[in-house]
Amino acid sequence: MKATMNARRAEALRRYLPILDWGRTYTRSALSNDLIAAVIVTIMLIPQSLAYALLAGLPPEAGLYASIVPILLYAVFGTSRSLAVGPVAVVSLLTASAIGQVAEQGTAGYAVAALTLALLSGGFLVLMGVLRLGMLANFLSHPVIAGFITASGILIATSQLKHILGISAHGHTLPEMLTDVIFHLPQINWITFAIGVSATAFLFWVRTSLKPTLRRLRTPSLLTDILTKAGPVAAVIATTVSVWAFDLAEKGVKIVGAVPQSLPPLTVPGFSMDLLGALLVPSVLISVIGFVESVSVAQTLAAKKRQRIDPDQELIGLGAANLGAAFTGGYPVTGGFARSVVNFDAGAETPAAGAFTAIGLAVAALALTPLVFYLPNATLAATIIVAVLGLVDLSILKKTWNYSRADFVAVTATIVLTLGLGVEVGVASGVALSILLHLYKTSRPHVAEVGLVPDTQHFRNIHRHQVLTDPTVVTLRVDESLYFVNTRFLEDLIQSRVAEGSDVRHVVLMFSAVNEVDYSALESLEAINRRLSDMDVGLHLSEVKGPVMDRLKRSHFVDQLNGRVFLSQYDAWSSLVPSPAPHVAA
Amino acid sequence: MKATMNARRAEALRRYLPILDWGRTYTRSALSNDLIAAVIVTIMLIPQSLAYALLAGLPPEAGLYASIVPILLYAVFGTSRSLAVGPVAVVSLLTASAIGQVAEQGTAGYAVAALTLALLSGGFLVLMGVLRLGMLANFLSHPVIAGFITASGILIATSQLKHILGISAHGHTLPEMLTDVIFHLPQINWITFAIGVSATAFLFWVRTSLKPTLRRLRTPSLLTDILTKAGPVAAVIATTVSVWAFDLAEKGVKIVGAVPQSLPPLTVPGFSMDLLGALLVPSVLISVIGFVESVSVAQTLAAKKRQRIDPDQELIGLGAANLGAAFTGGYPVTGGFARSVVNFDAGAETPAAGAFTAIGLAVAALALTPLVFYLPNATLAATIIVAVLGLVDLSILKKTWNYSRADFVAVTATIVLTLGLGVEVGVASGVALSILLHLYKTSRPHVAEVGLVPDTQHFRNIHRHQVLTDPTVVTLRVDESLYFVNTRFLEDLIQSRVAEGSDVRHVVLMFSAVNEVDYSALESLEAINRRLSDMDVGLHLSEVKGPVMDRLKRSHFVDQLNGRVFLSQYDAWSSLVPSPAPHVAA
Repeated sequence: MKATMNARRAEALRRYLPILDWGRTYTRSALSNDLIAAVIVTIMLIPQSLAYALLAGLPPEAGLYASIVPILLYAVFGTSRSLAVGPVAVVSLLTASAIGQVAEQGTAGYAVAALTLALLSGGFLVLMGVLRLGMLANFLSHPVIAGFITASGILIATSQLKHILGISAHGHTLPEMLTDVIFHLPQINWITFAIGVSATAFLFWVRTSLKPTLRRLRTPSLLTDILTKAGPVAAVIATTVSVWAFDLAEKGVKIVGAVPQSLPPLTVPGFSMDLLGALLVPSVLISVIGFVESVSVAQTLAAKKRQRIDPDQELIGLGAANLGAAFTGGYPVTGGFARSVVNFDAGAETPAAGAFTAIGLAVAALALTPLVFYLPNATLAATIIVAVLGLVDLSILKKTWNYSRADFVAVTATIVLTLGLGVEVGVASGVALSILLHLYKTSRPHVAEVGLVPDTQHFRNIHRHQVLTDPTVVTLRVDESLYFVNTRFLEDLIQSRVAEGSDVRHVVLMFSAVNEVDYSALESLEAINRRLSDMDVGLHLSEVKGPVMDRLKRSHFVDQLNGRVFLSQYDAWSSLVPSPAPHVAA
Repeated sequence: MKATMNARRAEALRRYLPILDWGRTYTRSALSNDLIAAVIVTIMLIPQSLAYALLAGLPPEAGLYASIVPILLYAVFGTSRSLAVGPVAVVSLLTASAIGQVAEQGTAGYAVAALTLALLSGGFLVLMGVLRLGMLANFLSHPVIAGFITASGILIATSQLKHILGISAHGHTLPEMLTDVIFHLPQINWITFAIGVSATAFLFWVRTSLKPTLRRLRTPSLLTDILTKAGPVAAVIATTVSVWAFDLAEKGVKIVGAVPQSLPPLTVPGFSMDLLGALLVPSVLISVIGFVESVSVAQTLAAKKRQRIDPDQELIGLGAANLGAAFTGGYPVTGGFARSVVNFDAGAETPAAGAFTAIGLAVAALALTPLVFYLPNATLAATIIVAVLGLVDLSILKKTWNYSRADFVAVTATIVLTLGLGVEVGVASGVALSILLHLYKTSRPHVAEVGLVPDTQHFRNIHRHQVLTDPTVVTLRVDESLYFVNTRFLEDLIQSRVAEGSDVRHVVLMFSAVNEVDYSALESLEAINRRLSDMDVGLHLSEVKGPVMDRLKRSHFVDQLNGRVFLSQYDAWSSLVPSPAPHVAA
């Protein structure tokens, strides 16, 4: 007995601390694979972390800090073996948009607001995880996510134009940003522009053409991987050295400047009610979007190795990572697509790879930050632009157009509203619209009037098949669960069908495809029953599923029904249709 | 050809002007029935109209005016033969709540805001009717409506306490009103209190006990009807005479005072953008709630005579009535339950009965208004309290508790939030909650793992039946349409099922109960297919419905499927399960 309880406790512990699962069986070969993956990912993350901090409007070190403790915490609580957690482009954009509304960029209040946002996100994620509410993320339909990510990619790339051009510009929507960029265009700094354009072109070439070239040269694949991932590092080194050597900062090229040499500091988020109130809704949005992105990546990678992840435990893992970010100088983080795929491709076998990456980044934060003093912002902007252009995928428009107009409307609205009115309005409208479109579709369910296929016991649509019908019996097959959105439709349909055929004596509702009858539908059925009684018409049901019947029996409906409940539609037909033989309908 | 076109035009005209339908065949007997009904309804409506105006915070004549032109317009455009349109309790409460936020009660701005509200409601209803969007009203589920009406009844009765007590009190929520009443209790006017309590008791007796008493005395039924409906009139006369005879107004009893002697005046609603903006959302709420109440009543009464109503044309009829109210000194109106049932029971055959009622009320507005000078407000409050207590029906709590917990949650939340936070918040939260609960229910669809019933071609749940299974083939029957809310659930389910059985070589999804696959579900199926491919497991579909298959063929999914699409589940079984014979599961 005691042994069982201990086993159960151990089971629960392993569920909440997945590290106990993989940690016990950690092998030397896993260690070496994890170390190699960590080296590649660290090289990739150093410039990326600085760049995403820039995108979020935070000092560059915030990006490094957000990649250290959060990775370690995810390694303890997360269930994915390959997910790499840290700052990502879309969440950085959402962060900038949220805290830009409560504090001025560059002020101390701005950095504190970022910590508070991470705290709220972390708290919300952990809460959802403990309540096992991972399903809430499902309210974001795929077209809404695709539209939102594409629009965000465009917004992010546009927001970096000012760094490439060396001008100052603002705005959170595409029209605002573009007009502001055009307005400030005369102030362009041509040296910055030259650095920005060449860095962008170089990174674009690395991304699209370097790998095939190296393959043609028969470079070993590990080296190929490191070289292609090191592209941004190369750009960083080249442009930093140029700025330093030719004193370009004197000529107006904006640089990163002094970055403290330090491990992640212990920080305290702001707790004022005003701040918490203002950031609550954005933090929910960031949590849900971050969670959806992270789970999709984790699930895809897990499947490749026939592993599985637990979405509710993922909430706890990501929540812990965000809480960690809140207290160590970071900002909201999530599992990123690019970094996780790189981690996976580089051979990471366990979350220990993430821990080694964290150590690499900690070393960078301690030792390498003086080296980025002369790093031009334009190079970081180029890194961001090349990274996010991969997010932009307008093919979703064509795909949904071909497949389903409702989904096309949802994706188009999400893109247009995100670009035109900002990220919060865009994604909120997309969610609302996709729910409304779904309700609209189910509000007019397919209801077929059916008749008997001669010489069988099957019933088919009278408008599609040669079937037997009888003017006194109307049989309607309802092809949808009945709930409040479509009950009135059914009431109207039956009322008009009965009003038009004055010979009708019986209405049979065939419930073979009805998976649920909610209380509204129950009351509608009662109203239909009463109205048909007033007309001296019988109401009957056939082929009611077990669970639906169980529920109906909890009400008085079955007792009050003025007709009968038939097990099969053929029973109903045999009992209700008077001999002699009925008509054949066209 | 020309004859057909004329016939079509006449048909369309009859649809939009139902009066052309019944007007052509109007008989002498219908005329006499309509006249009798009109007399009874007029007697009932005079005090009720004054009382509801008081509830809406408007001068008493507004209630009369709102019952005259709107009734006439509904008679022309409406499709119900028995519906009586005018001020009703719930809409009066909503009106008070909406315009109380933009103007001070008793000011000219308040009355103008009421006109604007009627204008916006009318415009919105006509627009919905022309766009044939009557289905939007379905978003109000029955439990939400029931909870809202019950809570409104309680709010309305409470709001009248101040008139019964002769004190002044304010507030739009139950706690606000109760604390304000208790706070002002020392200022109670005992004469007003005596009038209010006796009027309430008398009306309550008329409502519950008079009819049985008269029946026992074998009074003719028409006379019984008139006497019971005249109860409020009797209370009005008795209390008015008392106030006049004993000079009670001097002793602090609040009276109706001077009411202009006039037909409905021509009035102009306010058109300022501020006013329109502030009243837009409330007007939508009032329109939808009024429409739902009206259509339910109209449909119930139509069914009793095997007539039918056209919900989209009803929108136009009610919209016209509200536009009429906006330009003739009224406020938002709808088809009322009590007045329509009385009209129907009194034998009204056509909307002409409504027209005669309108004439009766016009005569009252012209000739009888001086007689109500000394009418105490307490009597009107008593009329309202007795009328709305019929709305309060807490049995809905028990009914939904027994039938479905989700519906119980929706109705409870609606009642609590309406009482605690006011009518707008209450109904909006109810709608949002019932939609979320529905989505939550469909987000975890019933998915059964099935096996072959021996010696048949039928497949049943392996956990409920003795069926044949094979460790290499997993067959899942999905009992719900697949759309964004439940796609991830399916992904997780399949992934965990396949991860736990390492012998699995084939997954078959049985789609017999899947009525729709939206774009999110398509992408999920594609992801499942890719992941299963990575695991060397085949994905197959069986029993896909025609329309679903047509849609899937518009995508590349069927080409990319690493398995096959089988017409029947038995085909799938025969092809995929290796001989020798499979196991029998418990």
